[in-house]
Amino acid sequence: MILHYRYIQQTMSSTIHSTDEEHQTKEMDIRSLSSSRRHPQNAPHIHKVGVPPKQNLFKEFKATVKETLFADDPLRPFKDQPGSKKFVMGMQTLFPILEWGRSYNFTKLRGDIIAGLTIASLCIPQDIGYAKLANLDPQYGLYSSFVPPLIYAFMGSSRDIAIGPVAVVSLLLGTLLQNEVDYKADAEAYRRLAFTATFFAGITQATLGFFRLGFLIDFLSHAAVVGFMGGAAITIALQQLKGLFGIQNFTKKTDIVSVLHSVFGAAHHGWNWRTIVIGISFLAFLLVAKYIGKKNKKFFWVPAIAPLISVVLSTFFVFITRADKHGVQIVRHIEKGINPSSVKEIYFSGQFLLKGFRIGVVAGMIALTEAVAIGRTFASMKDYQLDGNKEMVALGTMNVVGSMTSCYVATGSFSRSAVNYMAGCQTAVSNIVMSFIVFLTLQFITPLFKYTPNAILAAIIISAVLGLIDFEAAILIWKIDKFDFIACMGAFFGVVFSSVEIGLLIAVSISFAKILLQVTRPRTAILGKLPGTTVYRNIQQYPGATKVQGVLIVRVDSAIYFSNSNYIKERILRWLMDEEEQLKSSFQPKIQFLIVEMSPVTDIDTSGIHALEELHKSLHKRDVQLILANPGPVVIDKLHASHFATTIGEDKIFLTVADAVSACSPKLVTEV
Amino acid sequence: MILHYRYIQQTMSSTIHSTDEEHQTKEMDIRSLSSSRRHPQNAPHIHKVGVPPKQNLFKEFKATVKETLFADDPLRPFKDQPGSKKFVMGMQTLFPILEWGRSYNFTKLRGDIIAGLTIASLCIPQDIGYAKLANLDPQYGLYSSFVPPLIYAFMGSSRDIAIGPVAVVSLLLGTLLQNEVDYKADAEAYRRLAFTATFFAGITQATLGFFRLGFLIDFLSHAAVVGFMGGAAITIALQQLKGLFGIQNFTKKTDIVSVLHSVFGAAHHGWNWRTIVIGISFLAFLLVAKYIGKKNKKFFWVPAIAPLISVVLSTFFVFITRADKHGVQIVRHIEKGINPSSVKEIYFSGQFLLKGFRIGVVAGMIALTEAVAIGRTFASMKDYQLDGNKEMVALGTMNVVGSMTSCYVATGSFSRSAVNYMAGCQTAVSNIVMSFIVFLTLQFITPLFKYTPNAILAAIIISAVLGLIDFEAAILIWKIDKFDFIACMGAFFGVVFSSVEIGLLIAVSISFAKILLQVTRPRTAILGKLPGTTVYRNIQQYPGATKVQGVLIVRVDSAIYFSNSNYIKERILRWLMDEEEQLKSSFQPKIQFLIVEMSPVTDIDTSGIHALEELHKSLHKRDVQLILANPGPVVIDKLHASHFATTIGEDKIFLTVADAVSACSPKLVTEV
Repeated sequence: MILHYRYIQQTMSSTIHSTDEEHQTKEMDIRSLSSSRRHPQNAPHIHKVGVPPKQNLFKEFKATVKETLFADDPLRPFKDQPGSKKFVMGMQTLFPILEWGRSYNFTKLRGDIIAGLTIASLCIPQDIGYAKLANLDPQYGLYSSFVPPLIYAFMGSSRDIAIGPVAVVSLLLGTLLQNEVDYKADAEAYRRLAFTATFFAGITQATLGFFRLGFLIDFLSHAAVVGFMGGAAITIALQQLKGLFGIQNFTKKTDIVSVLHSVFGAAHHGWNWRTIVIGISFLAFLLVAKYIGKKNKKFFWVPAIAPLISVVLSTFFVFITRADKHGVQIVRHIEKGINPSSVKEIYFSGQFLLKGFRIGVVAGMIALTEAVAIGRTFASMKDYQLDGNKEMVALGTMNVVGSMTSCYVATGSFSRSAVNYMAGCQTAVSNIVMSFIVFLTLQFITPLFKYTPNAILAAIIISAVLGLIDFEAAILIWKIDKFDFIACMGAFFGVVFSSVEIGLLIAVSISFAKILLQVTRPRTAILGKLPGTTVYRNIQQYPGATKVQGVLIVRVDSAIYFSNSNYIKERILRWLMDEEEQLKSSFQPKIQFLIVEMSPVTDIDTSGIHALEELHKSLHKRDVQLILANPGPVVIDKLHASHFATTIGEDKIFLTVADAVSACSPKLVTEV
Repeated sequence: MILHYRYIQQTMSSTIHSTDEEHQTKEMDIRSLSSSRRHPQNAPHIHKVGVPPKQNLFKEFKATVKETLFADDPLRPFKDQPGSKKFVMGMQTLFPILEWGRSYNFTKLRGDIIAGLTIASLCIPQDIGYAKLANLDPQYGLYSSFVPPLIYAFMGSSRDIAIGPVAVVSLLLGTLLQNEVDYKADAEAYRRLAFTATFFAGITQATLGFFRLGFLIDFLSHAAVVGFMGGAAITIALQQLKGLFGIQNFTKKTDIVSVLHSVFGAAHHGWNWRTIVIGISFLAFLLVAKYIGKKNKKFFWVPAIAPLISVVLSTFFVFITRADKHGVQIVRHIEKGINPSSVKEIYFSGQFLLKGFRIGVVAGMIALTEAVAIGRTFASMKDYQLDGNKEMVALGTMNVVGSMTSCYVATGSFSRSAVNYMAGCQTAVSNIVMSFIVFLTLQFITPLFKYTPNAILAAIIISAVLGLIDFEAAILIWKIDKFDFIACMGAFFGVVFSSVEIGLLIAVSISFAKILLQVTRPRTAILGKLPGTTVYRNIQQYPGATKVQGVLIVRVDSAIYFSNSNYIKERILRWLMDEEEQLKSSFQPKIQFLIVEMSPVTDIDTSGIHALEELHKSLHKRDVQLILANPGPVVIDKLHASHFATTIGEDKIFLTVADAVSACSPKLVTEV
């Protein structure tokens, strides 16, 4: 604590740190003098520790802001351009279609049409099912596959992403909205709240992008995302048992215990065998199609069109057998025509405003996480750059417009994007093609869905979400990082056994706990010399490395900040005590020098400086000399600013551990 | 995102990562083979990157838990001891007095008695004033200087800390309690809530210590503490203007605007000139005494006994002049006798339970921060070890017992501890002596305080808290770390212009923001070779360092985690692009090798591995070879576990940058 420390120092001993400007300048001179005079005996070999040129405060601040918010340097191409050119480039930045549209050609169009048709055939049945997952009427799913993809095509920069409603966001939205309004009791309020949430989801996304805060979504560790997605997939699949088994009275809870209880409670009187036969057989068909597509990449279109085929076949089958008279539930009615305006349905005041806002923020963040992950994956596969913040603005605008045209939260769909890629999409035009097909569907075909059995939609959703469960990723996480695995499993079990919100909360908490743990308990290591070299390395990693007699070399593997400065100080003292105990028991000479290797210490704050001062004092009392090796530019600057460099002595700061060792034990110099 | 990535990999290309155990073993063999066969040309010189022996999962977990929670290894002395000895040692651990008491002697006693008498004379007037700050009757301040110091003397391990009520915690408690209950309207409920808060403050402290979570208080950056303390000191001093000027109607708010408004609004009719004369003249006396003590360490006792002298003189003065009849406010009444029991006054149910708990947690944490800071400072000055967690248990127990004996939150007082130290205290016996004097005061002297003017108490508090404003620390913080300075000023202005809670909230938020910024945007640096050495250093710090033709060397200065993996990947690619642009414009050969120096990368998680994989792919497309230098034990382990080491090739991982450079540009070998 600098506060108390300083006061006491000032009360009890002579003032060490003068704040006098003149005095400081004198110190600086001494510093540079002593640096150049150091180690005259091994002159040409030993470099001094560099002190970077003093930076202007404003420049320093600007550099930090730039690195934090504009790390990708988005304005670089604008530099040195005339005004009109800047305007054109600005428009191209906002609407990338103006840029890539100029080099668009027939070959690309062919690829986009094929891909667009494929994802349209996949999205139509999925949309109807996902809308049910969000407790909305089926047409809202189709609406959300009409307007948002069009907007995205103009503003987005990913070439492969397929936009529309997705399973996890639909489930999340359905759960969160249902907590506030019962969709059965008041369908209108429920729908209006859904649009409100969609509006704020869009605002959240666009705001994050506009203020370049996109990095905030990186705080959801991807191990947590893997677990969350897997858990959500299982929850969604379990929910589908209702449709697949034709159960009437189904629990509103989403945890596995309630759902299974509901399913088996209804076993004797609630299951409809016709529904089960239809559902299971088409589910088997879909899974086989999926297997074929996986085995041979050439047949990627088989699983892509299987859902539409299932819908057509089963609808026809129900229509001719009139199975709906025997308890097979059907879609019954889908509104015909394109999206009506919903501007007036959004709550801009009243108690639902805040609720809609809260739900929108959560749903918007999750939707963003998914879309950005998909965008990044494909961008890296095709090796093009994707500006995360720009993407967020595009996605946000798309959802704001969507909320005004009867759409609910849309984002990049993982399964459809993969199909889009494999079908050979070239640009976002494939989304326009898909959007057009959905438009045709809404205008002309929706009445035909009347007899589509709900069981088929359930089967389609189950087969789609199974792809979200990623065993291999979980196994890999287990192998690489056990803590990540805990986060993954925490999110998974949270979703499966409790609810999506709890799972999400667990995922976020564990992610943060990991960050905090990382900064509070950084690693330290004892270094030894690799035989025949001047290289010093961790003796745990290199058992061949030998300690230098009378010298203890500790490397601190983190920036020294208030959160860990005290730990680092005490850890170093403990290394020393352990070592001394060991030396004592084997009657070896005691430690005289403690070298702290500071290469990994990228920064230090006032607490860190104090920890070093306290370490220096403690060591001094034990007759051990503190020596620093290779402090970085920021650190050496602060060591000087705080006068700690003069406290321990300029000549106790070395460029490398090897230099430090050879300086503090001259007899070893010959040996090297 | 591993999830999508993995799926797509698995769908579109052959599976790279086999999870087959046998296959892995084979890989390992190849690995060690290739390692030993590497670089036969410069054989003896080049060491391979060490792979630490595979650890048992349980052992690894145990080591992590130990390092996180038992970093100080508290059970070490217990090892290899017989049972009875263990019991004795356990008792000594819980009650350190049993340990140091055995070597207690007359010399030490003499020091402790002098120190105890000195701090008693200082604490009695302060206690009365601080109790008023907490809106409690004056005797509660004295009660809190009787029981808690006794408990601490038996359980605490600091030799210099002086226990009792302190200004900042009193103010904090007063503000938070007043928000819930008005002390004027319902004094009993207010007092009961105060005891409840004290109880939970103690429970919080003891719990943190018992579960060894003491490191949590390190999350309040000390720059924020400096600002918070300074702000609180100013707020407290301003509050005292009420007593100093004898103002009757005073605002309940604590922000500077309201207080000054209150003070100057009362200027014409509310100021009492007699009070002002008494107050100002004794304040001047106290400040002169303080100045004398500061100038000459021998006169440390002058400021220590000045408050008591002021009280005696002013009380006598008021008594003979009966100035209280002319509007000079006096203490009037202090309950005689020692602490009554307050067990039954604590709320263990009802609406006040939760409120008391919440206030207690906040007050307990702040009290802890202050006590631990003081304890650490003096321990480092006298060079003895202090177990933070044990201290917390002692402080917690002390406050729990205190809450049952009519005390409010006590902690280590900064100013009295410094006096204690200077008066030559040897052990916690000085606290016992002080406690005994307070006991005598409570039993016999309290009626004499009847005529003590409130203005004197105000003057004493003002002169005490001025020491909490630490300009020099703030200036030093400004010099060392600008971000710390923002935290410091944020907390300061938050307290001064709003309230203690807001100031505290700002302090905590900025501290966390700093941690998050640190992990999201780690530093990277371009390295160059120092002429005449094989040492590679940051070219910004060492302008003399030269880049190697065709090779770009980037050092990543942080563990690679989900929170920064994407940034690091993109930052490295941007370094490469910048460099290539520059080379192009000067017609130099292009970059062929990108060496990532990984010495500071202490850990990597699954997201980090993915970022490396994506980096490798992007570089591959640009015909640039990725090379890693000096990965640490954890990192090399995970590179192997994820098979990334085999993906880029075992022979692309080197022990040092120098090895890597000499391997990738053979023509440079001769030059070195």
